[in-house]
Amino acid sequence: MLQLLSQRADVWGEIRLVASKRSAGKKLRVRGEDVLVHALSEKVFDGVDVAMFDVPDDVAREWAPIAVSRGAVVVDNSGAFRMDPDVPLVVPEVNAGTVRNRPLGIVSNPNCTTLTMMDALGALHARWSLESVVVASYQAASGAGQVGVDRLYDELEVVAGDRTLGTVAGDVRRAVEDKLGETGSPFAAPLALNVVPWAGSAQDGGWTSEELKVRNESRKILGLPDLKVSATCVRVPVVTTHSLVVHATFAEQVSVEEARTTLVQAPTVVVIDDPGSGDFPTPVDVVGADPTFVGRIRQALDFPNTLELFVCGDNLRKGAALNAAQIAELLAEELTTT
Amino acid sequence: MLQLLSQRADVWGEIRLVASKRSAGKKLRVRGEDVLVHALSEKVFDGVDVAMFDVPDDVAREWAPIAVSRGAVVVDNSGAFRMDPDVPLVVPEVNAGTVRNRPLGIVSNPNCTTLTMMDALGALHARWSLESVVVASYQAASGAGQVGVDRLYDELEVVAGDRTLGTVAGDVRRAVEDKLGETGSPFAAPLALNVVPWAGSAQDGGWTSEELKVRNESRKILGLPDLKVSATCVRVPVVTTHSLVVHATFAEQVSVEEARTTLVQAPTVVVIDDPGSGDFPTPVDVVGADPTFVGRIRQALDFPNTLELFVCGDNLRKGAALNAAQIAELLAEELTTT
Repeated sequence: MLQLLSQRADVWGEIRLVASKRSAGKKLRVRGEDVLVHALSEKVFDGVDVAMFDVPDDVAREWAPIAVSRGAVVVDNSGAFRMDPDVPLVVPEVNAGTVRNRPLGIVSNPNCTTLTMMDALGALHARWSLESVVVASYQAASGAGQVGVDRLYDELEVVAGDRTLGTVAGDVRRAVEDKLGETGSPFAAPLALNVVPWAGSAQDGGWTSEELKVRNESRKILGLPDLKVSATCVRVPVVTTHSLVVHATFAEQVSVEEARTTLVQAPTVVVIDDPGSGDFPTPVDVVGADPTFVGRIRQALDFPNTLELFVCGDNLRKGAALNAAQIAELLAEELTTT
Repeated sequence: MLQLLSQRADVWGEIRLVASKRSAGKKLRVRGEDVLVHALSEKVFDGVDVAMFDVPDDVAREWAPIAVSRGAVVVDNSGAFRMDPDVPLVVPEVNAGTVRNRPLGIVSNPNCTTLTMMDALGALHARWSLESVVVASYQAASGAGQVGVDRLYDELEVVAGDRTLGTVAGDVRRAVEDKLGETGSPFAAPLALNVVPWAGSAQDGGWTSEELKVRNESRKILGLPDLKVSATCVRVPVVTTHSLVVHATFAEQVSVEEARTTLVQAPTVVVIDDPGSGDFPTPVDVVGADPTFVGRIRQALDFPNTLELFVCGDNLRKGAALNAAQIAELLAEELTTT
């Protein structure tokens, strides 16, 4: 986030950094300057126009209303307020207008997996009216934070060089647990040489919180409360950049050529789709970039009005900090022009 | 295959090994004995009851009819004959009876990705009538043969230990190409720290041969020529065991509990599905085993009569050699009882 705020158009006067007492007093680099980190307190929000929260749900639930009471508009990256009907859930390319309707003074930033496909689906929906989405995810380790990234690198170091691993049930699990211990992973199974069909917490009906977020947040962002959505979330041994296989059905007939043109014209979508020549997006080729990358665009052979897409997006940029920065900039523009 | 033939019930008299001239004269271990490899010739099939072919499509196309003309029934693991209406495509748990209707004397073994889900879908279809399937695959490197496995291990050795990789577009690609060269991979992009949405060859409409095999072979095996199928095939950095996210719609209402019971009762399906306790199948936990493993069984919230499943199966066993051995055993039984 600090890197993004340092790189994007500078619309901010002061940037005030706030963290727990443990980090207070440190200095962090923003816009080429070392900036002091303040301890979280009620007063620290005095004079703040836009407060960007990147904290756990419970901290956001407690402190966002306090920041609002001190005069700030809060952009919250947690899940605490996303489904609150009085809190807009904003993807600037899709529903920028909703940011002005914020009775609680809070604007929510969507979940990274949902965000991975929103720019592309939003552009297609505007033209052909989305009716249903079936999604399978290929989610990167960094979706679980730095601890997830560290764990993947740790596990890769354990398994690399042993060309017997991954061939007998349990061999990778034993190797990883022998070297790294049986606890300490944010993932529910070894991630090296594996895929793990679990992200988030357990919910009713066997669903994960992550899967239900994809459904509920997609509906809210697109303004389609009855949109049919089914998602299965799977973690893969990729550092950063989520990928999604999307089976999207529209109200009207859509051709691959028209869809490609619409996606190419969407300002934040990049189409890489000449698969016969090896051109399609993959995580390691697009990580660190801002756009949503789309490839493998096909018309479903047996399902009317349906496209198949492979979508990649950096879960730390558009999937988190970038979208939050874009929301904050919408607010800054509003506050300086009204 | 030789390992499987050595482990399973021994229904064979002689096992004769045949290969190209290059390998002729070698000895390979089968059923605890060293067995001479013969060079491929017309005469080598004389006296053979069942000839199991594991060769490229063009070799199968040329030599399977020759083996048949010499009196053998051919079990072919290639794609050469799978969609031929005069060749049964057999998964013994699903359509064993079709093996007897083989006007060309050839029986085909399905593609590994299709086979990964057939036992599970076959059991569910028998009770609730399958109408459509949307599939996203997580396919292992060994689907591309030993060269795929070697490449994955090579790439893992290159990337392990460098904790900056996977964070900037192209860094993994450059690291891999610097060490391993720009050619020589059977995959269309780096596989380490990545997922690659491409398997097979380019077909009309942006589809891959692998994706169309899943559609066409599923229809043929289940005897449902109008089954709606859409598949997206993605390679992942797993050594062996394909995983599939399956969104399956049936003609009749199906509950998770009934589906679970049906799958548990299917002899070759194992259900691992207590995700709150971390119980779901993953490739490294089931590799090397014969069954189809199913977890994450959920009722789709917005799609009637629809289940979501996560399915894992060893692509070298049930996905290839095991199913071929099972077909051969059906033939051996028929030939010894008629």
